[in-house]
Amino acid sequence: MKIQPYMLLALRRNIENVVKLTDGEFDQIASRFTPKLIRKNQFLLEEQDKCKHDYFVIKGALRQYRMHDTKEWVNQFAFEGWWISDWYSMLNNTPSDFYIDALENSEVLQVNKKALDSLFDQIVKFDKFYRVMFQRAFSAQQKRIAFMQKSAESRYEEFVSMYGRFETHVSQAQIASYLGITRESLSRIKNLGIKRLIDQK
Amino acid sequence: MKIQPYMLLALRRNIENVVKLTDGEFDQIASRFTPKLIRKNQFLLEEQDKCKHDYFVIKGALRQYRMHDTKEWVNQFAFEGWWISDWYSMLNNTPSDFYIDALENSEVLQVNKKALDSLFDQIVKFDKFYRVMFQRAFSAQQKRIAFMQKSAESRYEEFVSMYGRFETHVSQAQIASYLGITRESLSRIKNLGIKRLIDQK
Repeated sequence: MKIQPYMLLALRRNIENVVKLTDGEFDQIASRFTPKLIRKNQFLLEEQDKCKHDYFVIKGALRQYRMHDTKEWVNQFAFEGWWISDWYSMLNNTPSDFYIDALENSEVLQVNKKALDSLFDQIVKFDKFYRVMFQRAFSAQQKRIAFMQKSAESRYEEFVSMYGRFETHVSQAQIASYLGITRESLSRIKNLGIKRLIDQK
Repeated sequence: MKIQPYMLLALRRNIENVVKLTDGEFDQIASRFTPKLIRKNQFLLEEQDKCKHDYFVIKGALRQYRMHDTKEWVNQFAFEGWWISDWYSMLNNTPSDFYIDALENSEVLQVNKKALDSLFDQIVKFDKFYRVMFQRAFSAQQKRIAFMQKSAESRYEEFVSMYGRFETHVSQAQIASYLGITRESLSRIKNLGIKRLIDQK
């Protein structure tokens, strides 16, 4: 599959939210990305694989999770305009602890680490773009760690603030797994939330 | 207190592990940092404060933790040559969930967000340095999240691989708090580790 104009547009828009590029700079960046279609339930990464790519989501919904005690623990979701990867595995060339799979038929643009490193050296603004992305991702993750020991209600609020507008892409079971609670607890929390909204009227 | 030559040397060495600087570039960077002495148990940041600085540790030992259910949960330690801050609070200008305090008398260099942003714009190599720092910090934190649901033994191994050579700076209670286990469990794990080493001989 060849890279399509709408994919280029989505990628450029995402980068230009942070840094403005010349056409020449963008073409050089885009030339290192290749499109990939992933069917629902197909893997981009499996535990024990070495992660080789960073992925930019064009369409669909993906999740990163790990298996522990035969249960899935969702670590992150990614939707249109998000990036997803296992950077620890990629940086250290070590087997991943995570799976990344598609929750629905999805399209991503992938770029490998060598291409990224050469883009970082060639295009200063691309380096800056990734600095800002990592800065946000790191800070969001610090916050997530703090949330993990708060109440289930707080954790659901965190989910809504991060992912709320994509909630229809994700099953209740997957949200519960992200929050580390049962489906029954999730539905209790959501009902409480609705009750609170009605009470406020 | 004026910035001292050994502080400048430590800062320059830390940055030059990633990018080489001219003297002019380093002087420009260093001019935005100011030294700060922190006595044992003194705070650099308290919960509900807005975090205003990134800190580079010259000497001593610091920790970042939060309070939950009247217990301290250590999120991160920082020793000579490490950086520590609450980036979520700094980026979003929101009250912090965390405390940062000194485990022993310490010296840090501090730099505020406005100075950092202007350095990012003026010195391309400094931007790259932070991109690499955030990339490593983000990936280490992804790994830490995966570890948090593994066994106490695995979590102790993670602590040793990250902080082992600084273990003498940190009390057993603080290590236990970082691992999310009791002091009794920590001492059992350490004894098991020593037994294993002896058995291998």
